[in-house]
Amino acid sequence: MAKTLARSPLAPDAFPALPVIKGVRFASAAAGVKYAGRNDVMLAHLVPGSTVAGVFTRSATRSAPVLDCQAKIGRDPKDGDGAAILVNSGNSNAFTGRAGEGSVKALCEAVSTAMDLPTERVFTSSTGVIGERLPHERIVAKVADLVAGLDEAGIAGAAQAIMTTDTFPKGATAEIEVAGAPVKIAGIAKGSGMIAPDMATMLVYIFTDAAIDREDLQALVSGINDRTFNCITVDSDTSTSDTLLMGATGASGVRVDRNTTAFVEALERVFLDLAQLVVRDGEGATKFVTVRVSGAESAADARVHALSIANSPLVKTAIAGEDPNWGRVVMAIGKSGAAADRDLLSIRFGDVVVAEKGWVSPDYREEMGAAVMREPEIEISVDLGLGEGDATVWTCDLTHGYISINADYRS
Amino acid sequence: MAKTLARSPLAPDAFPALPVIKGVRFASAAAGVKYAGRNDVMLAHLVPGSTVAGVFTRSATRSAPVLDCQAKIGRDPKDGDGAAILVNSGNSNAFTGRAGEGSVKALCEAVSTAMDLPTERVFTSSTGVIGERLPHERIVAKVADLVAGLDEAGIAGAAQAIMTTDTFPKGATAEIEVAGAPVKIAGIAKGSGMIAPDMATMLVYIFTDAAIDREDLQALVSGINDRTFNCITVDSDTSTSDTLLMGATGASGVRVDRNTTAFVEALERVFLDLAQLVVRDGEGATKFVTVRVSGAESAADARVHALSIANSPLVKTAIAGEDPNWGRVVMAIGKSGAAADRDLLSIRFGDVVVAEKGWVSPDYREEMGAAVMREPEIEISVDLGLGEGDATVWTCDLTHGYISINADYRS
Repeated sequence: MAKTLARSPLAPDAFPALPVIKGVRFASAAAGVKYAGRNDVMLAHLVPGSTVAGVFTRSATRSAPVLDCQAKIGRDPKDGDGAAILVNSGNSNAFTGRAGEGSVKALCEAVSTAMDLPTERVFTSSTGVIGERLPHERIVAKVADLVAGLDEAGIAGAAQAIMTTDTFPKGATAEIEVAGAPVKIAGIAKGSGMIAPDMATMLVYIFTDAAIDREDLQALVSGINDRTFNCITVDSDTSTSDTLLMGATGASGVRVDRNTTAFVEALERVFLDLAQLVVRDGEGATKFVTVRVSGAESAADARVHALSIANSPLVKTAIAGEDPNWGRVVMAIGKSGAAADRDLLSIRFGDVVVAEKGWVSPDYREEMGAAVMREPEIEISVDLGLGEGDATVWTCDLTHGYISINADYRS
Repeated sequence: MAKTLARSPLAPDAFPALPVIKGVRFASAAAGVKYAGRNDVMLAHLVPGSTVAGVFTRSATRSAPVLDCQAKIGRDPKDGDGAAILVNSGNSNAFTGRAGEGSVKALCEAVSTAMDLPTERVFTSSTGVIGERLPHERIVAKVADLVAGLDEAGIAGAAQAIMTTDTFPKGATAEIEVAGAPVKIAGIAKGSGMIAPDMATMLVYIFTDAAIDREDLQALVSGINDRTFNCITVDSDTSTSDTLLMGATGASGVRVDRNTTAFVEALERVFLDLAQLVVRDGEGATKFVTVRVSGAESAADARVHALSIANSPLVKTAIAGEDPNWGRVVMAIGKSGAAADRDLLSIRFGDVVVAEKGWVSPDYREEMGAAVMREPEIEISVDLGLGEGDATVWTCDLTHGYISINADYRS
């Protein structure tokens, strides 16, 4: 990324004020992995007793740090074990053979030594170019500075340090009461291209001061991820590095579990906020698009249809052109492979009924659809008229900006 | 399509000289379906005794003419039955409800009456915008002129009349000897966007003067289609109108069957030539890309990997930018869902070994890959090192031109 990209027109006005999550501290530094003149490494430390859960890309060519995290994630903390998360941008350490595993090991050992943590409690992520050796020694050289700089209020800086082609840092938060006691959740994310279900080119780190067993935390993370990050798509491409880690410090003294409704709902809001922020930063995006499919034979079918619409280059370019070309929605449903009956289909753009029962609605006029398409946020709703299955996914349009960004990312 | 598009830089120098296929005549006319000032309807007539076979989109929302063709295609001709193919551009008569079926009926009856053919032997295709009523009366008004204008030498005009966003007409031919007697094959195609396996937004009409039983012809068409048109992709979108019809007039007096090697090979060359011409006219294309996958666990797996690479927006934009970003090829393999082992993978760009055994090749230098990427025709080869499965698909790059064409196709 040689050039600076303009902030997405769909970006929020500002980075949110994220609360301090007791028990977790952050630091950022400029290690010069690839980018010059900016922070490109972040370290988070969680107090002893914290539980950690995660979900990862299912790519068959996933990166060395992902494989390392997956090997470590299913363990309960021992007494006195803290945890650390070390993340760099600029180089994904993916498809780097045995050298890649060596880099992960070097990073984990450096943090382990500096913070007196077992290496099994050090998680790393790397994001950026694939297939180039990670100059881990540059990061190792900054570990002491990072440890010295750990700060409860450092989360905003961490959100900055993990960016690649992102045009804005992404954060979300929720504060609730559980049995009268306050519980806080805060998260950060990066990602803007190579975003598709099965996660995305996304790194996501979410923290809470609630106390929760590791198994319950993992169940919540896996389930909510399926309804949020796995329901967004920018370009249908799936990264080799996707990682979501969540840490629960317990520092609030409030214990929750997978059935604590207020906590689960708040956590899902944070996940969804972050997921939608990634779409809002979709490379070249000018429209935020919600695709709702109902009346499918099953929820799985609804999801297949919704993703077929959301990933269709012809649908996405029509939206970019503010063209209410609902025929392309019909095309995307037809090609999806899931059950559909042309003559039962209905399609709405926003509140406007565009097509029903296999043909354009008698009351529809092109200008009605065009008016919806001029909005920055667009909802496409399809009812298949077959059953009870529904699904919602979020995506963006496909524009000249996407081409510009991706036709010269590396050279 | 309000504007005229520049001829694709990947187009051949000229439309080929297609031979007369005895027993089939063509006519074209300007019916004003949507476009002004150009021919937009073509009629082909095949002599009595001709056999006809076809393959069609599997879209669940396929158009009225496709459904009508499918209902008719499996019949052997009766004595004295000729056949006709009527095609219009500008409107696909897809997702047009019962009115769409009525339009097909009106067109078939008009040709049936004018040419004294049973309606079951009249095949129609429509290509263009989805969801708008086909003004079939404009076409019906031209049927008498079309019949009067039928000409053995009219195939080039027919290739012009069926174009939509195509920037050049597409034709291919082969002439062979079977047992010492000459046999001719000639075909035309249209298609440039909404192209993906499961056919494409493609209309293809191929003719031969060989005599061949309908069942043998159908077997050949289905089999060869799988290795040619079903192996090309421009944008992963699949049309509601894809149709390939092939007619064999028998006028050469030479009988062939599905095992006549010279005929089968020549036919496959014509199919492949036409399929590759469609890719060469891919919307906005500046590079013709061949993706070869070998060493997969199965041929099916190889095809999944090859299509994942060929359809990846990130791979396609890298090619557009002449960026030898092989990491994106790794990403596309990883996300495909088919079996892969990172540490057995090797990747070549042209003859240059880029990556082997899970990492960049020690002899590879960026400039070597960049030199390949500057060529207009690029081959990406992947060996998975797992088994014997292989597959080849053809595609093009994803450019600003694609966005420009598709962001304002209809408005």
